[in-house]
Amino acid sequence: MDYPNFSFEVLKIAATSRARLGRIYTPHGVVETPNFIFCATKAAIKGGTPQMMREEGSQIILSNTYHLMLQPGAELVRKMGGLHKFMGWDGPMLTDSGGFQIFSLGYGSVADEIKGRRSTERPKTLLKISEEGATFKSYLDGKKQVLTPEKSIQIQRDLGADLIVVFDECTPFHVDKSYTARSMRMSHRWGLRSLEEFQRGASGVQALYGIIQGGVYPDLRQESAQFVNDHGFFGHAIGGSLGASKSQMTDVVGMTASQLAPERPIHLLGIGGVSDIINGIRQGIDTFDCVHPTRIARHGGALVPRHLRDEFGTPHKEHINIRNARFQEDVNPIDSTCGCTTCQHFSRGYLHHLLKAKELLAMTAITTHNVHFMNRLMTSLRNALQEDRYEDEVKFWE
Amino acid sequence: MDYPNFSFEVLKIAATSRARLGRIYTPHGVVETPNFIFCATKAAIKGGTPQMMREEGSQIILSNTYHLMLQPGAELVRKMGGLHKFMGWDGPMLTDSGGFQIFSLGYGSVADEIKGRRSTERPKTLLKISEEGATFKSYLDGKKQVLTPEKSIQIQRDLGADLIVVFDECTPFHVDKSYTARSMRMSHRWGLRSLEEFQRGASGVQALYGIIQGGVYPDLRQESAQFVNDHGFFGHAIGGSLGASKSQMTDVVGMTASQLAPERPIHLLGIGGVSDIINGIRQGIDTFDCVHPTRIARHGGALVPRHLRDEFGTPHKEHINIRNARFQEDVNPIDSTCGCTTCQHFSRGYLHHLLKAKELLAMTAITTHNVHFMNRLMTSLRNALQEDRYEDEVKFWE
Repeated sequence: MDYPNFSFEVLKIAATSRARLGRIYTPHGVVETPNFIFCATKAAIKGGTPQMMREEGSQIILSNTYHLMLQPGAELVRKMGGLHKFMGWDGPMLTDSGGFQIFSLGYGSVADEIKGRRSTERPKTLLKISEEGATFKSYLDGKKQVLTPEKSIQIQRDLGADLIVVFDECTPFHVDKSYTARSMRMSHRWGLRSLEEFQRGASGVQALYGIIQGGVYPDLRQESAQFVNDHGFFGHAIGGSLGASKSQMTDVVGMTASQLAPERPIHLLGIGGVSDIINGIRQGIDTFDCVHPTRIARHGGALVPRHLRDEFGTPHKEHINIRNARFQEDVNPIDSTCGCTTCQHFSRGYLHHLLKAKELLAMTAITTHNVHFMNRLMTSLRNALQEDRYEDEVKFWE
Repeated sequence: MDYPNFSFEVLKIAATSRARLGRIYTPHGVVETPNFIFCATKAAIKGGTPQMMREEGSQIILSNTYHLMLQPGAELVRKMGGLHKFMGWDGPMLTDSGGFQIFSLGYGSVADEIKGRRSTERPKTLLKISEEGATFKSYLDGKKQVLTPEKSIQIQRDLGADLIVVFDECTPFHVDKSYTARSMRMSHRWGLRSLEEFQRGASGVQALYGIIQGGVYPDLRQESAQFVNDHGFFGHAIGGSLGASKSQMTDVVGMTASQLAPERPIHLLGIGGVSDIINGIRQGIDTFDCVHPTRIARHGGALVPRHLRDEFGTPHKEHINIRNARFQEDVNPIDSTCGCTTCQHFSRGYLHHLLKAKELLAMTAITTHNVHFMNRLMTSLRNALQEDRYEDEVKFWE
C-alpha cells in the first residue's frame, strides 16, 4: 500500500531512550512529533473554536466516527464537503474507527479500565459482537446500529479526515488472556478487512493506521505488532488495555512500541496525562490523544507546570482547581510563565468568580489555557529532544 | 456638577426626525452614537470573550450592580483593580444601579411588563421598599440585603465603570397612576441622594446618569424630565414602564426624550429589538441595552436582515432559528452579507448540528454573529444618519 501524499520522517532519536523527533506530512499540513491530538468529539472542540485552537498552537485534532455516524451522519458531512470544511478546521485531522466508543459504552467503561480505574455503572448498549461486526443501540434514539470494518472505513471516507483508523474490538481490562487473544485475532481479521475496504476506495487523500491489541500480555502484543508490521498501514496505534498501574502502562507501551516498524508513526490511543505523555515519548510514541485537557477545564482544572502544583499543594495532580477558595482574590494569571490568551487577560480570581457564577466564559477561558499548555508542553519536549536535554526539560513539567 | 473627563458631542440631527449622531467621550474611549450596549451581567458576556467583542466591533458593555454586589462582591472587584481590569475589558463600560433587578425579581417580572408581556410567576424576593431604600433576599443564599441610593453609588464606585446610574424604583406596568406618581417622586429623592453620594466621592473617572420614571403618563414623564434636566447629571436614562404595545412605547419614548436636555446623552433602558432601536433612534435615543441579542443566540436564534427573515417565513421575528430542520443540510453561512467570524467559517448546517449535539460552540458561534449583527446595524444606521438616508437604510433591517 502506497501513501503518495503522506510521509513520516524521523529527524532524530534520543541517545538515552527510544524518544524520537519527527514529522508527519498530510495533505492538510505537517504534524511535528511528538505531538498531542485534541478531541473534537462531535466535530467541535468543547469550549473552543478552530481559530482559538490555531492561535494557541494546535496542529492536529480528531473527531469520533461513533458520534458523527449517529449525528449528523457521515452522509450529511460528505454532502457538506467533508469534516474539514464542515467544522472549519483546515489542518491535519484524524478520525477513530468507532470501535472504542461502541465497546466502551457497551461494556460500561473501557476508558476507565484502560487506565486501571474501577468501572462505573452505565447503561449497556452493546447488543452483539460477531465475526461480521458489532451491533449496538444508539445512545440518541435507541435504534439498532451495525458497525463493521467495511462500514467504519466507508464512514471515515465520507468524513474525510487525513488519518483514519481500522475497526477493532477494544477489550476491557477484566477479560482473561484467552478472551484477549481471541478478540485480538478477530481485530486482526477486522484490520485486514478495514485495509481491503480502504484500498478499494483509496483516493490518496487519507492514510490508514492499524491497531495493536493484546492487552497486558507480552506474547500477544508481540503477535499483534508483527501483524501490523506485516501489512500496508501508514501508521500504528496502540489500543486495548495498558494495565492497572502507571508502571504496567510503561511496560506494555514500551514492549509494544519497541516491536513496531520504526519507519511508521506510532499513536497511543486515549492517553493524555502529562507524566503518561512524558513516559510514552521515552517509549517511542509519536502522537497522543485524550479528552482530559479539555474535559478538566470545564470543571475548573487548569494544567500547570510542576512548581505551581507544588506551591498549591497538589503535586499528585497535574492541574490546580481554580474553584478552590484560595484563588478568590488572586490577581495572578493561572500561570505567569504561560503565553495563552487567558493568562494574558484574566486573573485566577476572575476565573474563580466565573466558575462560581457558572458563566460559559469560565469553560472557554480555561479550555484555551489547557490547549495552550498541551501545545507548549509538546513544543518544549520537541525542542528538548532536538537539544539532547529531554530528561532535564521534563523536570519543569512532571 | 462638572464632568471634566467626559463629554457628549452631537454631530448632526436628522432633518425628518429627532434622530441624532453623536459621540460620548469617556476615560476608556469614545462611544459613537447611536449605539448598543451589550450586557455582561455577571462581569462576562455570556457566550463571548472581551477579544471577540472587540473583534466584532463592540464599543461599550455594561455589567449589573445587583449581580456583582452578591457575587463576587464590589469590595472584591475593587481589590482586584476594578471591573475593567477584573474582566479584561479596557473600553467604555456602564453599570446600572441594581434597582431594576431588585424590583424585577421582587415583583415577578418587570422586564416582561416593561415590554407589555404577561408576567410569569417567579419567587418574590423583595421584602420591603421604604424611603430609605429596598430590602431583598439574595437569590444565591437567601440572605437579607439592603440597597440604598448611597450604597448603590458606593458599589458602583468600587466597580469603577465609566458611566453609572442613580438608584430608582422600577415600577411594574400594572400599578396605577397614583402609585406611579408616588414611586416616581421617591425615585427623584433617591436620584438626588445618589447625586449627592456621587459628588461626595467623585474622582472624575465616572459620570452619573439620572433616570426618568413616570410610566405611561405624559404629565408624570414631563415632571420627571424636568427633574433630571434641573440636576447635574451627565446623561439621562429612560426607565420604567413603556406601555403595552409598540406604538405606546414609541409615544412614551418620544414624549419623554423630546423634553430632555438636548446636550446630554439619552439611554433607553432594557430595549434591544431591532425595530424598537430603529424607532428609538427616531425619537432621539443615543444608546440602548438589552440581553436579547446574546440570550436568543444561546437558543439558536440568529439575527438577520429583513430579506432573510422573509425568505425563511419569519418576517414577524427579528431572527431565524437555526434549530429549524430546514437548515440541516444548508451549506450557506447564517447571512452571506455578514462579515462576522462565524459567517466566515461556519455553515447553517454545521451550526444546526452543534445545536442538536448541545455543543458549547453553538452558543459562542451564534453569540459572535449576533454581536456582530448589532454592531453592524448600529454602524449602518450611524452612516445613514451621516448621509441623510436613515429611512432608506432601515428598510434593509426592519
